[in-house]
Amino acid sequence: MKKVTVHVTLKQGVLDPQGKAIQTSLNSLGFQEVEEARVGKYIELYIGETEDVEARVKDMCAKLLANPVIEDYEIDLEEAVRS
Amino acid sequence: MKKVTVHVTLKQGVLDPQGKAIQTSLNSLGFQEVEEARVGKYIELYIGETEDVEARVKDMCAKLLANPVIEDYEIDLEEAVRS
Repeated sequence: MKKVTVHVTLKQGVLDPQGKAIQTSLNSLGFQEVEEARVGKYIELYIGETEDVEARVKDMCAKLLANPVIEDYEIDLEEAVRS
Repeated sequence: MKKVTVHVTLKQGVLDPQGKAIQTSLNSLGFQEVEEARVGKYIELYIGETEDVEARVKDMCAKLLANPVIEDYEIDLEEAVRS
């Protein structure tokens, strides 16, 4: 089984209200040094035997995991884990 | 300004309904090889001048960004970015 991690982030320039809320909350909690916060998703996939894992995961991102209009994604293949 | 990234993930053993929904959806879209999916948050913080950034960010995680009862967090300090 392979572990693949996917980071889905908003494209530069897209407003991030959740990030803005985090920044404001941190500021009011006394963390004035926080100038900006951006929030994305982090997805771990455990994938069984298949050919060309990277292409398959790209396809998953395009079809379900990310919204390519406003989001970017980054795929990292990790070493095989548990069998 | 420093960039710090934080990964917030559910602790092992904690049910992840969002991850389960992703796994089921991917399976029914034809990606039968996906055996498990886990979802977490990925937060980018841009932090101005301050002492001991790592300790400050740990404090932010404990107070706002993560729920230490069910979530783990991992902090990565990156190189300084834009001034």
